Amino acid sequence: MQIKGVNLGNWLVLEKWMSPALFAGTTAEDEYYLPRQLSKEVYEARIKVHRSEYITERDFAIIKSHHMNAVRIPVPYFIFGDCPPFIGCIEELDKAFGWAEKYELQILIDLHTVPGSQNGFDNGGLSGVCTWASSRENVEFTLDLLEKLAERYGNRKGLLGIEPVNEPLTEAAWDSFNIEERYKPVDKEMAKNNAPVPMEFLKQFYTEAYGRIRKHMTAEKAVVFHDGFNFSVWKDFMQKEEFENIILDTHQYLMMAEIDGCPQNVEGYVTYVKEKYEASIKEMAQYCSVICGEWCLFNSLVCGHDTKGGQSVLNGIEGVEKESYTPEEKKEIYEELAKVQLDAWNCGKGYFYWNYKLLLDTVNEPVWIGWDSWDFGKSAAQGWFPVEHV
Amino acid sequence: MQIKGVNLGNWLVLEKWMSPALFAGTTAEDEYYLPRQLSKEVYEARIKVHRSEYITERDFAIIKSHHMNAVRIPVPYFIFGDCPPFIGCIEELDKAFGWAEKYELQILIDLHTVPGSQNGFDNGGLSGVCTWASSRENVEFTLDLLEKLAERYGNRKGLLGIEPVNEPLTEAAWDSFNIEERYKPVDKEMAKNNAPVPMEFLKQFYTEAYGRIRKHMTAEKAVVFHDGFNFSVWKDFMQKEEFENIILDTHQYLMMAEIDGCPQNVEGYVTYVKEKYEASIKEMAQYCSVICGEWCLFNSLVCGHDTKGGQSVLNGIEGVEKESYTPEEKKEIYEELAKVQLDAWNCGKGYFYWNYKLLLDTVNEPVWIGWDSWDFGKSAAQGWFPVEHV
Repeated sequence: MQIKGVNLGNWLVLEKWMSPALFAGTTAEDEYYLPRQLSKEVYEARIKVHRSEYITERDFAIIKSHHMNAVRIPVPYFIFGDCPPFIGCIEELDKAFGWAEKYELQILIDLHTVPGSQNGFDNGGLSGVCTWASSRENVEFTLDLLEKLAERYGNRKGLLGIEPVNEPLTEAAWDSFNIEERYKPVDKEMAKNNAPVPMEFLKQFYTEAYGRIRKHMTAEKAVVFHDGFNFSVWKDFMQKEEFENIILDTHQYLMMAEIDGCPQNVEGYVTYVKEKYEASIKEMAQYCSVICGEWCLFNSLVCGHDTKGGQSVLNGIEGVEKESYTPEEKKEIYEELAKVQLDAWNCGKGYFYWNYKLLLDTVNEPVWIGWDSWDFGKSAAQGWFPVEHV
Repeated sequence: MQIKGVNLGNWLVLEKWMSPALFAGTTAEDEYYLPRQLSKEVYEARIKVHRSEYITERDFAIIKSHHMNAVRIPVPYFIFGDCPPFIGCIEELDKAFGWAEKYELQILIDLHTVPGSQNGFDNGGLSGVCTWASSRENVEFTLDLLEKLAERYGNRKGLLGIEPVNEPLTEAAWDSFNIEERYKPVDKEMAKNNAPVPMEFLKQFYTEAYGRIRKHMTAEKAVVFHDGFNFSVWKDFMQKEEFENIILDTHQYLMMAEIDGCPQNVEGYVTYVKEKYEASIKEMAQYCSVICGEWCLFNSLVCGHDTKGGQSVLNGIEGVEKESYTPEEKKEIYEELAKVQLDAWNCGKGYFYWNYKLLLDTVNEPVWIGWDSWDFGKSAAQGWFPVEHV
């Protein structure tokens, strides 16, 4: 079965740019500082209303109507409610399993944040800090958590699999993400031991995580390893005999192609996707199952200016206040980019669009023009994403 | 142009059953008591997150993709923020005009609540109280408010029209709604002067409201009068020479047909809609423009029990905990009911579905089985509402 899915990002793991009202009146740039800047009561009120409204049963019905068969759900390390001041969200994930099973969708549980952070991204929960791998305590906490998730959901019909950690930032991509510049740490002390996640550590962690998860899951459920932004190094590892039903997850964004020098026009993107993304997926698919767990139509061309790898007004990069293309031209650009990307991901085992939903307002806040292509629902509604294509 | 629209109910005017999390931890049954039971900070946090997430730009894109051309937006009397402890929401309506104009949808502004309440429904904002019409102060407040809305939006391309008051409960329907039983007043003192809205008062109010609104709106924008649950009495009134571009709004629900004794099966509903709803619309359409401003697919048949006119677990009527029909059977029932109702509304000038969106969870709270047909998005996603039909 080819996976055709969307990510339910910003539901249980927040990103400020995707729902700015949650962060109103604070200077918090990430989820770590949100409960530290709000009173307990206000934090709880915001989070609970958000979780109850952002994704509900109706979204599962709608996702199904777009011919999707899976959702990838990012969850935070505090999902079980054992890390105050954060509020747990295991009940929300429980509900999601009920919805998924009713509408015949499969859930990939994606552990999107870990204590100390595995990447220092804002979406890792703690901007500018990347210290998880160097703390055995944090790693043990993570392994215990993964085992608890596997115990709870391992036999659920709606479970596709578990991904032990999202986007660990390894040496290969450390310099190009330049996290301390892009996501400035609030507390320099917390960031003083920042370092890339070592590849040898990551392989060891995945092996341990596999064991802890697999004992609660039959082989029909997958364990999914993110490539750490170094896709080609996993050939041998993925073929170890001890592993059953594992999938390699690679995230391929046009904004990363742009950082790599891809020309910011349709021909440039199409060529890059074919020659780099599709070629590498074909190559790796000879060794293991591969999915593209995050991608989208977003690109600097439609934004009307170079976003320097997807940086927005929140990173100090101002947008263009006027559409650069007519709706028809936009549709044509996005359709072409969707087609070439979907073709690439289908050389593997499929994909998850990032993201199902955003709350951006491009009308009243025109700095966000071009950014709404991150929104699957909006992209499908406007024919940017050809729902019938695959 | 035929109006094909949805109501954006529960966005700026709350209904507890549509977003229960907003009311969590309180005994409030309506919007009046919510800020009176929560701290200022928590009330503000809940309301602001709700308003920023429940309806956003993406919903306008999605509504447009379903071939709709209009939205009816219920607004509360405290929209301008001059009635503490309520928080105003004029900025949200401003944003909606930006979205509507981008996606080529027309907005009907529906004043859904007034001080003292015009109907005593929970959705009138103050359960069990119906005293608005007897207070000249409240009526003057309402007329001033309508004039301010007309001044602000009268020249907006996205404005379809203004409806001065939603569902005033007149003598004709007073007994059948039996509001003091169905929506018990919290404060009996406030309800002691309860009385139906007198028909003569209502005609006078509509005439005054028309004058106050029309002076800020050219004739291409409509003034929309709700029929007060007495559809046939408006023939003469609607033809007064002083009126330009007025529309009569009637709300026709299958649950009301049930109260009137309509058999709770498909044939019963179909016959009732044709013989009563369609016939009366055809009749009235000879005298004026008519829309069905609220209707939906909801019925007791699919709920699996008599809901006594749409009463839920919140009214003390328990639902059936198991689906009575297969998904295919449900689809067939709803499709047939949609077709006959759409045909009826199209004997007039069109319709607005109630409602675009709900947050009900029929999987984890099976008492709500059958109630999700109030949700246009979910109904369209499952083929219950034939989007291509009209």
